[in-house]
Order: sequence, then structure tokens, then C-alpha cells
Amino acid sequence: MVGYAFMGAAHSQAWRTVNRVYDLPARARMALICGRDSGKVAEAADRLGWEAYTTDWRDLVNRDDIDVVDVCTPGDSHAEIALAALAAGKHVLCEKPLANTVQEAREMAAAAATAQASGVRSMCGFNYRRVPAVTMMRQLVADGRLGVIRHVRAVYLQDWIVDPQFPLVWRLQKDRAGSGALGDIGAHIVDLTQYVTGQRITGVSAVTETFVKERPLSAESSGLAASANGGDGQVVDGAGPATGPVTVDDAALFVARLDGGALATYEASRFATGRKNALRVEINGSLGSVVFDLERLNELEFYDATRPTAEQGFSRILVTEGEHPYMSAWWPPGHIIGYEHSFTHQMRDFIEAIATGADPAPSFADALQVQLVLDAVARSAELGSSWTEVEPALTAVAV
Amino acid sequence: MVGYAFMGAAHSQAWRTVNRVYDLPARARMALICGRDSGKVAEAADRLGWEAYTTDWRDLVNRDDIDVVDVCTPGDSHAEIALAALAAGKHVLCEKPLANTVQEAREMAAAAATAQASGVRSMCGFNYRRVPAVTMMRQLVADGRLGVIRHVRAVYLQDWIVDPQFPLVWRLQKDRAGSGALGDIGAHIVDLTQYVTGQRITGVSAVTETFVKERPLSAESSGLAASANGGDGQVVDGAGPATGPVTVDDAALFVARLDGGALATYEASRFATGRKNALRVEINGSLGSVVFDLERLNELEFYDATRPTAEQGFSRILVTEGEHPYMSAWWPPGHIIGYEHSFTHQMRDFIEAIATGADPAPSFADALQVQLVLDAVARSAELGSSWTEVEPALTAVAV
Amino acid sequence: MVGYAFMGAAHSQAWRTVNRVYDLPARARMALICGRDSGKVAEAADRLGWEAYTTDWRDLVNRDDIDVVDVCTPGDSHAEIALAALAAGKHVLCEKPLANTVQEAREMAAAAATAQASGVRSMCGFNYRRVPAVTMMRQLVADGRLGVIRHVRAVYLQDWIVDPQFPLVWRLQKDRAGSGALGDIGAHIVDLTQYVTGQRITGVSAVTETFVKERPLSAESSGLAASANGGDGQVVDGAGPATGPVTVDDAALFVARLDGGALATYEASRFATGRKNALRVEINGSLGSVVFDLERLNELEFYDATRPTAEQGFSRILVTEGEHPYMSAWWPPGHIIGYEHSFTHQMRDFIEAIATGADPAPSFADALQVQLVLDAVARSAELGSSWTEVEPALTAVAV
Amino acid sequence: MVGYAFMGAAHSQAWRTVNRVYDLPARARMALICGRDSGKVAEAADRLGWEAYTTDWRDLVNRDDIDVVDVCTPGDSHAEIALAALAAGKHVLCEKPLANTVQEAREMAAAAATAQASGVRSMCGFNYRRVPAVTMMRQLVADGRLGVIRHVRAVYLQDWIVDPQFPLVWRLQKDRAGSGALGDIGAHIVDLTQYVTGQRITGVSAVTETFVKERPLSAESSGLAASANGGDGQVVDGAGPATGPVTVDDAALFVARLDGGALATYEASRFATGRKNALRVEINGSLGSVVFDLERLNELEFYDATRPTAEQGFSRILVTEGEHPYMSAWWPPGHIIGYEHSFTHQMRDFIEAIATGADPAPSFADALQVQLVLDAVARSAELGSSWTEVEPALTAVAV
Repeated sequence: MVGYAFMGAAHSQAWRTVNRVYDLPARARMALICGRDSGKVAEAADRLGWEAYTTDWRDLVNRDDIDVVDVCTPGDSHAEIALAALAAGKHVLCEKPLANTVQEAREMAAAAATAQASGVRSMCGFNYRRVPAVTMMRQLVADGRLGVIRHVRAVYLQDWIVDPQFPLVWRLQKDRAGSGALGDIGAHIVDLTQYVTGQRITGVSAVTETFVKERPLSAESSGLAASANGGDGQVVDGAGPATGPVTVDDAALFVARLDGGALATYEASRFATGRKNALRVEINGSLGSVVFDLERLNELEFYDATRPTAEQGFSRILVTEGEHPYMSAWWPPGHIIGYEHSFTHQMRDFIEAIATGADPAPSFADALQVQLVLDAVARSAELGSSWTEVEPALTAVAV
Repeated sequence: MVGYAFMGAAHSQAWRTVNRVYDLPARARMALICGRDSGKVAEAADRLGWEAYTTDWRDLVNRDDIDVVDVCTPGDSHAEIALAALAAGKHVLCEKPLANTVQEAREMAAAAATAQASGVRSMCGFNYRRVPAVTMMRQLVADGRLGVIRHVRAVYLQDWIVDPQFPLVWRLQKDRAGSGALGDIGAHIVDLTQYVTGQRITGVSAVTETFVKERPLSAESSGLAASANGGDGQVVDGAGPATGPVTVDDAALFVARLDGGALATYEASRFATGRKNALRVEINGSLGSVVFDLERLNELEFYDATRPTAEQGFSRILVTEGEHPYMSAWWPPGHIIGYEHSFTHQMRDFIEAIATGADPAPSFADALQVQLVLDAVARSAELGSSWTEVEPALTAVAV
Repeated sequence: MVGYAFMGAAHSQAWRTVNRVYDLPARARMALICGRDSGKVAEAADRLGWEAYTTDWRDLVNRDDIDVVDVCTPGDSHAEIALAALAAGKHVLCEKPLANTVQEAREMAAAAATAQASGVRSMCGFNYRRVPAVTMMRQLVADGRLGVIRHVRAVYLQDWIVDPQFPLVWRLQKDRAGSGALGDIGAHIVDLTQYVTGQRITGVSAVTETFVKERPLSAESSGLAASANGGDGQVVDGAGPATGPVTVDDAALFVARLDGGALATYEASRFATGRKNALRVEINGSLGSVVFDLERLNELEFYDATRPTAEQGFSRILVTEGEHPYMSAWWPPGHIIGYEHSFTHQMRDFIEAIATGADPAPSFADALQVQLVLDAVARSAELGSSWTEVEPALTAVAV
Repeated sequence: MVGYAFMGAAHSQAWRTVNRVYDLPARARMALICGRDSGKVAEAADRLGWEAYTTDWRDLVNRDDIDVVDVCTPGDSHAEIALAALAAGKHVLCEKPLANTVQEAREMAAAAATAQASGVRSMCGFNYRRVPAVTMMRQLVADGRLGVIRHVRAVYLQDWIVDPQFPLVWRLQKDRAGSGALGDIGAHIVDLTQYVTGQRITGVSAVTETFVKERPLSAESSGLAASANGGDGQVVDGAGPATGPVTVDDAALFVARLDGGALATYEASRFATGRKNALRVEINGSLGSVVFDLERLNELEFYDATRPTAEQGFSRILVTEGEHPYMSAWWPPGHIIGYEHSFTHQMRDFIEAIATGADPAPSFADALQVQLVLDAVARSAELGSSWTEVEPALTAVAV
């Protein structure tokens, strides 16, 4: 694994747990973790349970006894690491967004396609597909339970930078993060809604905004909080009263059309006061609707319009039954799971795909397509919200 | 009052109730109701409690003992009736949207301004401003409790025409209704959010859609249901298997910017399966947020970001205390009110304005500005979602 | 009508509205209202829309042109007025609880049975039976949709006397009110749950408490608020720092068994801080469950355990469809109704019963049975929570 | 650890995770697991991550390199194992309920007190105390934010045995489980509410019921599901159509008084259709109220009656901030945790107590007091719901 901050901790918890819960054809060994700061990565390796550590990610690629490389760094280094790992025949799990630019994403998707021919597997870390309620939404749509999809309504709202004194962490810098709310959390709702509906976004009209344009420089940051211990070693020089420009969007909103005829609204913001991790999706079809909220991820609301009129209503389904996706291995009904479990489920599917010689989803090509949507959003916003078609991926991809 | 269908019944209930609940400087007498079908309007007058009826709206304008004309017809007749009433010196309450075209709305606003000079009052029926929780939202914003407004998120979702066999009622015909979801329910969220934030929409990028393009012709329709008794006499010729084209939008979605710097998404749809009357608004500011849902109109969620971090949360305020707007006259705390009460509150304020010589809000000029937003939305949608500025009203208006 | 305070206003609104909304075989004329304070009842008659007023309730009984007497006074005068009205051949609607003592309730039930033989109708005002969601719960149980009832869980929580400085209004005095939370709000949950389940409570074990034992005397009080204008003329002598003893319960809790085998918990309290009018009921059966909350009275949660396991959940049914009880006469789906509508529905059923010669429910005998349950609760509490059987009514009664 | 079924898996996940998340003065080594079935415990050791396994729990007690014994068996073996472990100087974590009888619980509490003098720590596994929202409730009460506690309202509702064909698993047999819903889930709400309020239950009046008195015998069972793989080796002889008597309660309901003056209702049931793991608690005080629901364990509703009246409401606090108990070590705000995390928190506190020489809570004496409450409930139910005082523990205990 490369990276040991927020995503590194989440992935470590998943690697550590997956074989303790699921009965799989292969077991994960947590062999080597990589980070740029020697002291910190050593500490992380010890705490998170990795056998060894290194400060050079090439060590992961070069070791023969390593089969899988898990890329948990900021987006600016995804392409370099993933391409090297694929070239070396390693299976690659790469965090989202796949890359900071469409160009890099295209190279990665091409490399993944090439590697696939040699049995090398690759997957992008859109972990929310593996939240049981999300998987169940996909199944309901696929089973025709919603009929023709008319509307998609998706927001991903956070509020961690509402305070103008919140420092200029790497996620607020375009060269490190690629974009702001758009790529960080907007990417999730684009992928999730395309996955659930089985439809692709074809065009968008967008507005983006950076509400706070200058922020204090910070010594260090980790996760979504600037003051946490540990950090990922991404130091921003300077301190005290010095400030720097925020070079990414604070919020991105767009209307869209999907290739199956649905209309959609999307909104990603870090300025939605009171919303902490509010990925909320509603999908309306001719036969029914579903509603999901990541802050209550064990629940799915399902409206079945084929029921008798007087009994129709949104059913709050507690997605904790053995019959629900991924849940038979966990606790009895009603004993809820948390955010981290989506990663455990992701690792389960990735391990299973590798062991059985199947291609896991979402592929790098799927992730490229998400990148193309984000790119269309950014271009539309730059062009005064003009309608902007999503470029074709040119590679055949299946959601 | 002109019109005796859905709005006519709602207004009648309000006129009948307002002086029984509120202590006001004047009392309403329900003198004369007008409708085109003699038998039906006679029945309506008797049932709804009007002293007399007529089939010619000019009788209302001509009678000297009538002070107020309440226009509850479809939008295509608003201008003619309201203009005549204002010219005759009658105070006018006109249902929303003010008119079916911007041109008509401009004429009405101009006439209202002229009449105002002679002490004639006019008001547009955006009744949801008078839902106590909505009024309270406005107060919170005005008191600075939300700080700088960053986001507006507004939907008005219904599902009464999801069934393609639902007939071609007047609300689905452009010549009668002006537009579809946009003018019928979109108008409400435009007015409500501008009222609450005190900001105006300056530009939009929109998509609209008519999902079901042909529908069966119907003999008659009333309210939102095609099969209800009574109806408003708006007969659509033909019957049986014949169909006709739906000439209005089923759904309208747009992103917008407000003049105070906020970004917004709006969605009005009659195809949101399971949503019956879901006017939902969320507003995020730098100091707090509010959330409102018309299906739970007695509740307001308020997030106060100035509270200690560990205690912050969305507070579900039951807006039924004597301290809340309009509520001291009703029942004890927790004894909820319903949809129709917003009309009673509207009549209260209208009567009070007339009796005290004040100008009620929203004025026709305010309603014109809403019409201009709807017009910008329609034009943006026609122009492939290109960014479209909202035309100035040219009349000074205050929200 | 006798009484013009909180219940008087609610009943007036219902009498005024019922024929405007429902098509009924008879129309209510609001002929005469009675109160003890001449000035106040005159004002109330004018405001609430009664043709005349009197200070002597016997005038209602004696006037030949009056067919119905509606008793809205505190419980200590129910028996005297109702007995006289029945004796005079008037149909009687009497607010709950039927009486302050079992003895009075027995006399009233006997008189009602006698009068019934002459076609005189009587009904007790347990208005919550007429909340559409409650009526629907009854139907679901009656249709076998819940299977064998296992559990009833009912609370009625308010908080209007949490402040020890809240004055000693009539509702806190045993001689006027009979009991405190028990008779005022506990009576509602006893009646409602027996009505919905079709089962009778057979025995109870109870605790009651008066948390604040002395309160300031107040000049006047109305509704649930002590400071409201108007009042019902029930003056408590004295003022300022003087206090008097609270002679009723602040809270009553009990476990119970129902004759169909269900176990139940009941709680009525005026000390549940934050709960304004929280009548909440959950019923669990072998095939399903229902949940109701009066603060969201337009909603019913229904869990249908015969659905596929993975899709089971509590469905939030918005009870506003034309298919739902009482709702076809109101507004389109999703346009909610309020507390007062339960009285309009009650008047509808009462008028219909009178006009068609049917006996309305709940009868005085039904209300006597509720009184017997309350009596068992009070006796159990006095006897250190010992198990106490509910006395038989000796009159045949049907829920 | 002794036991490898439901609780064994949950505890293993916690032991495996605790040092990966929290920085503690000691690290847990998962040395030895014990179970009666050799093949199954071997499989469990391998899957759950234990270094070795045994079929004789005495091996745990006898090994010098083992410091801690974690007792996860059914209640009938708690006393024997825990007493032996304490005698051998091992720190003991024992699952709840502490024992199947008061007598055993008394012996265990006495042994724990003796061992404590030698620095041996013991703790009972009421893990829900460590749900962050529950810990926060305790803090709010302790800080006086609720004022004088008036009401406790606690239910723990499940529905896994509603089907009469669900087999006779060990949890339905008195000799193995001690009691049914009462000891299994009722114990949790007794402990939790006493912990949160800081008050002890002094007396109760109870009803209990066994709705389904005969059930099919089953070959094996695990967790709450009878058909799960693995199981805990607790074989019930017989199969096919044979049935046996259910010897425990299906539901237990009681009213109670607490030593601080509060009134309370408690209900534990396995027959609440649609409720999967619904531990719900509401506490009303003179200054505020709190509400908790285990199915939404990341949320706490807090009503602060000291706020301005118009702004009072139940605040839905997402208990995921770094400022909240236990949460700084987990994910960013809004990224929720699950059921299993309560065990990780429990292990954190237990390890810390051992390492720092402090006594963890709840002690065996605390758990004995819970047992005495359960005993009073059972006795009250047997004596026809007569009021039953909770016996004193005779040992000084602090909540």
C-alpha cells in the first residue's frame, strides 16, 4: 500500500478484517506500506499492522512476493504509481478519482486494458458501491423494480471548510488534488448514480464556486481535519499569518441528462453547514423510487408504486438481513455496520476477482468515464454553464 | 371570488375561517362567487358558503358593495380579470403564477402600481410564505442567524401524472396553464426561496422535459385529480380513446446564482414517484442551515453552527408555539395545522393590509419578478441549457 | 354548545366546516352557545359564529328548535348537562372523559341506553379515532393484516407544566378535572388502542406521581396555556405569591393485559420535556406492525411481515389519498390536514348517524369502559401498584 | 477467550482492532481461544485470528503467559469460568448478564472484590455503555444539562422468534440462558439507563409472557439465527418434527421507580415485528431530554429546554466529531461507525484500566445490581405483578 493517512487507515482496517469475516479463496498479507516520511510511515506500519515499510513506492513494485499494489495517495501520483505497478504485473487497486487529469486517466485505462490480457486485475476505489444499501439499489433497478428511470437527484454535502480560517490543506490545492469538491466527493455521486441506474451521463450544465479564495497556510494536515496527528507528510511550507490561494472549487452543481432519458441534478459542496458526510441520492422511476443517505448507510428507502394505493409509502428497509448484499457475514439483523465496512466489502470483491480470474468493477475504464464527466462539468463551469457533452471514453466500458 | 375548483375551495375555507380565528380590523363577507357553469357554480356557492353566484366575472367588478376580488381561475384569465378589477378600484388577490406570460405580468404589475396610488391593494397568492415555518425561516435569515447564504437547494416534487393514462387535464395544456411543473409548482419554490433568503435569482441554466407526450383526452378535471366531482367547467372536447399532445413540461430543473452570492439548484417535477407534495428547501449559510418539507409543514429543522461543536445538530422545531408566526391564534403547542391554514394566514395579512392601508406582499411586482425567473428558465431550456440572465423587472420591487 | 374555551373553539371550527366539506343528509346550524361569563360568551359567540348565547345551559335543553347539545365543559359538569339533555330528547355529544367518576359515567351510560330506545343518539368525543391514520390502523387490524396482536406501546406526552411556576389551572384540580394526565390524555390512549386493536384492557399495574405538589394560584387560564386571553371563566381566587396544592397526577404509567392476549405499556405525562402533543402508539402483531404519532398525524408507518424479507421495512404512508378514510373530501394527496380536522370528521359521523338513525361510536357505554380502565389505574397506583382488574361495565358494549 | 459464536466473533474483531486504532499503554495478543467442539474451535481460531485453540477452558486459566480471560459463553458457565480465572489472578472480562442466578452473581462480585485487592481487574460486558452517543448522554446528565430526571422510557425490541417455527435454540432454554428477553436484552436497558441517569431502580411491577410455548427442536444454532454456520457447539438433541417447551420469557414489561425520583417504563421483547435491534431510550428531565436508538447508534437527539422557546427542538446530533467520546481515533465527521465498535471501545477502556491500575466499569458489583433488578422483575411477574423491591447488593457499588 502506498499512503498511510485517512485512506491508508481505512484500507488497512479493511485488509486486516476481510479474511476474518469472509471465507475467501485467498488471504491478504499486509506486506509493505510506503510513505514519504520515514518516521511517520514506520509508526504507521507498526500501528496499522503492516509487516514492513519503505519510503520508495518502487519497492512495492519491485518485490516479487508482492501481488497487489493499493494506491492511497493524493491524485497527482496515482498515474505514475499505478502505471508502474501494472507494468510490473501487479494487480492494482487505485483510490478515486482515478487521476487528476483526463489524459492520465486515459493512459491508466489503456494500461489496465493491456495488463488485463495478461491476467492482471485493476479496480478503482469507488467504495460506496459496496455499501449494502447501494448494491441493493442497483439490484432493484436491474430487476426492473423502478421501471423507467425519470429522475436522479444526488448531493454530496460536507462542511469542513466553512470556517475561512481552516487552513490550505492539500485537498484545496489544484496541483495535488486535481479539483476540489468536484473530484473528491462529486466523483462519488457520479459513479454511484451511474452504477445504480446503469445509465451514463451524456451532458451537463454546471456552476462551480470558490467561496473562500485565500486561506491560512498550514504545517500539516490529515484526513479531512487539519489538526489531526500523523498526517500524510504533505507539508505546506510556511506558517502563522501567511495565506495562499485556494485553487480548487468549494462547490460544484450541475444538471445533467442520462443516456436512458433521465434528468438529474448533482451537487457537491464543502460549504453545506451541518452536513458532515451527506451523500444523498434519490432515484424516481415509473414504478418506484429509492432514497439513500450515507449518514444512515444501513437504511434504504424504497417506494413501490405497484402496491395498493392506500398502502404505498417509502419503506425504511434496515439493510442488515442475511439476505442483503454482503451482510450474511456480519452481525444479526439490526446490528449496524459503519463507513469502513464498504472498504472491507471492496477488498472482498477484489480478492475474489483476483483469485477466480475475474475482472473486478469499477474498472479503470469505468473510472475514466467518471473522469470524463468531471471534466465536462469543469469545462461547462468555465464556459459560463453552457451545455457540455461528456466525451466518449473510446474504450468499451460497462457499468 | 372567481373560480370554484381546487383553489376556490381552499380560498373559501380561508375566507370562512379567518375572522373566526384572528381578531382583525375588518371582517370578510363572502358575497359573490363566479364560475362559467351555472349549475356547478350554484352548487359551489351553496356548499362553500357564498351568498350569491354568477357566471359573469364582470358582475364582481361592477358591484359597488364588493371591495375585494379574489382570482382563482387558471392562469390564462388572470390578467383580464385582475386588470378590470384594479381599474374598478377593487383590491385584488390573484393566485399564482401571476400570469401565463411575462407581457401580461408586466401589465398587471404596472396596473397594480397605478392603482396603489389610489389606495387599491393587490397581492399574489404565494400562500406558502404564510406557512409558519417558512415565515420563521425568513426571520432567521433576516436576523443574521444563517450568516452569509452559500447554498439553496429546492425541489417541489409530485407524482400525479406518472401514469401515462392520466388524462390531458387543463394543467397539461400550455394555452390554459402557461407551463407545466415549472409555473405550477416551480413558481412556488422560486418565490419561497427568494422570500426566505432576501436574494434574487440572477441567472439560470435549465433543462425541461415532457416524458409522456400524448395523453387521453378527458371530459373534465378538478384539482390535481381528473376524476373528482365538480371540476371547474374547463371541458376538453372529445372522449374515449382519443389522445392529445401534452404541451407543457413534466419536469424542470435548473442551477442558478442568486444576487447575494449563493448557488442554487431547483427542481420541479410531476414525475417523482412517491412524492405527493414534496416542496423541500434547504438553505446553508456560513453560520447555520435550515430545512423545510411541506409534507411536514409544522416542522422546521434549524442547524446553529454557533453552538458548541459537540452539541450541534439539526433541531426539529415543532413550529406550533404561541411564539411562532401566526400560531398564537390556533391550538396549543404540538396540535398541528394543515395545508389550508396557509390560506387563512394569507387572508389575515391581506385583510389587515387593506384595513390599515398598507401594501401586502408579495406584490404583483414581486410576482412579475418570479415570472421573469420562470421565463429565463424556459428560455434557457429552449436554448440548450445555455446560461440565461433573468430580465430586470424595471419596476422597483422589494422581496 | 356548552363551553367556549379550547374545546369550544375546536368544536366550533368543526361545526362551521363540516357541511362545507362533506355532502351530508343534514346541515348543522350553530344556534346557541353557553358560558358562565356573560361578556365572554357574548364575545365568543360573535367570534366563533354562533347565532346566540346564554349563560344558562338549561336554555339549550329547553329550546325546542335545538336538536343537539355539545358538551365542552370541564368534566365536573358533564353528567348534569348530558343527563338533562338526554332526558329532553336531545342528541348529545360529550367531550372526554365522559365524567369525573365511574358513578357518573355509569349513570350517563344508562341514560344513553334508555334514550337510545327513543332514537336519541349520544357519542363521546374521543376525536382521535377520526384521525385518518388512526382509522386506517383500525382497518388494518380488522382486516387481519397484523395477525395476532402481541404488543401495544402507547404514550401521550406533553410538557406544559414542567415549569414549577406554571399556575394552578383547573386541569390541575381534582374537583374540576377528576384526574390529571391520566384522565386528560391517558384516556385518549386507552380509547385509541382499544379501538384500534378491538381488544379491551383487563387488568393493570400502575404508578402515578405528582412531581410538583404546590403551584402559584392563577387568575385565569384557557386551553393548555395559563396566560391566553379569553379563558373559560374558570377563575381561581387569589393571585401573586399565593400557592395551592396540585391535587391530580402529573404522570401515570402502567402495564396492562388485553383480552386478546396482548401485553401493553401506557404512559401519560405532562412532564416529558420537549414533547408537546406526542400521542404515540405502536402495535406489533404476528404479521405486521403499525406506528402512529399525533405530531405527524398525516403519516402512518406500516410494517408488513408478509413481504419478502429483503424488502420489509416500516413504510411511511402519507395518509392523504382519496382512498384513505375521510380524505376524499379534502385536498390533493400530500396536502396535509391538521389537529382540528379530527373534530370535523367527528361531526361528520355524528351528523350522519343522527340523520340516518344509526348509533354513533364511541357510545357512552364505550366511554364508561374507558373510565373503568382509568379507575383501575388509579386504584392500582393507590394500592402500591398491585395488579388491578378492570371492573365490568355490566352494560353490553362494542368497541 | 472462551466461546467463539456471535459474541466470540464480535469480541475477536474488537481485540484485533483496538490497538490499530487507539494508542494504548498495552497491546492485546490474541493468544488462545476455547470451545467445546475441537473442529469448530480450530476453524474459529484460524478465521478469527487466534494463535492457538483448546477445548478446555482451564488451559486459559492455567497458562502463565495469559493475563486476561474473556468469557463469551452462555450464562450458565460464566460463574465457574470467571471464578477460576479470578482465583488464578487473571483479569476477567465477562459477557452480560453476569450470571444466570443472583446467587452466582453474588459469588462473582465477592470474588471480584477480593481479587481487586491484589490488583486483578474485572469488568462486565455491557458494551452499549461505550456507544459514543450513550456515553455522551451520561455526560449530559452528569453535567446537569437535563436537570432533575423525571422519566425514563426504555425498550429493547427484536423480532427474531415471531415465527412459531423458529427452533428451540439455547437462548430459549432456561437452564442455558437463565431467562429470555429479560436477561438477554432487558439487562442492557436496565444497565444503560442506570448508567446514563446515575440512578438505581428501587422497585418494579412486571408482566412477562411466553407467547409461543412449544418450538421445534434444532440441531444447532448460532448468534440470533438458527441456521448460521459455525454455531457454538450447543447441540440440542433431536430433530425433525419433535418440539420442546420454551422455558424462558418472550417478553418482559415493567414500570419502575428510580432512587432519584424518576418514573420509568421498560420493555424487552423478541416479538416486536419489524424491530430488529431497537434499543430505544428516552430520558426527560426538568431542563432537557435525550433520545437514543441503537439502530441509528451514531445519532443522539438532545432537547435543550434552556434555549429560546421558539428555537427549542430535538437536535439530531451526529455523534461522529472528534469532540465526541471515543471518536477522535476513527474517521472524519459523518463517517459512521457500527455495532462492533462498541466492543472495540470496551476493549480500549479495559486495556487502559489494566495498564494503569484502575478499576474498569461496570464492575461485577454493578452487574450484580443489574441481576438483582432482573430478579425483582421475574419475582414481580411470578407474584401477579405485585410491587417488588430490588434487593440491596450489600456491596458498595457506584454506577
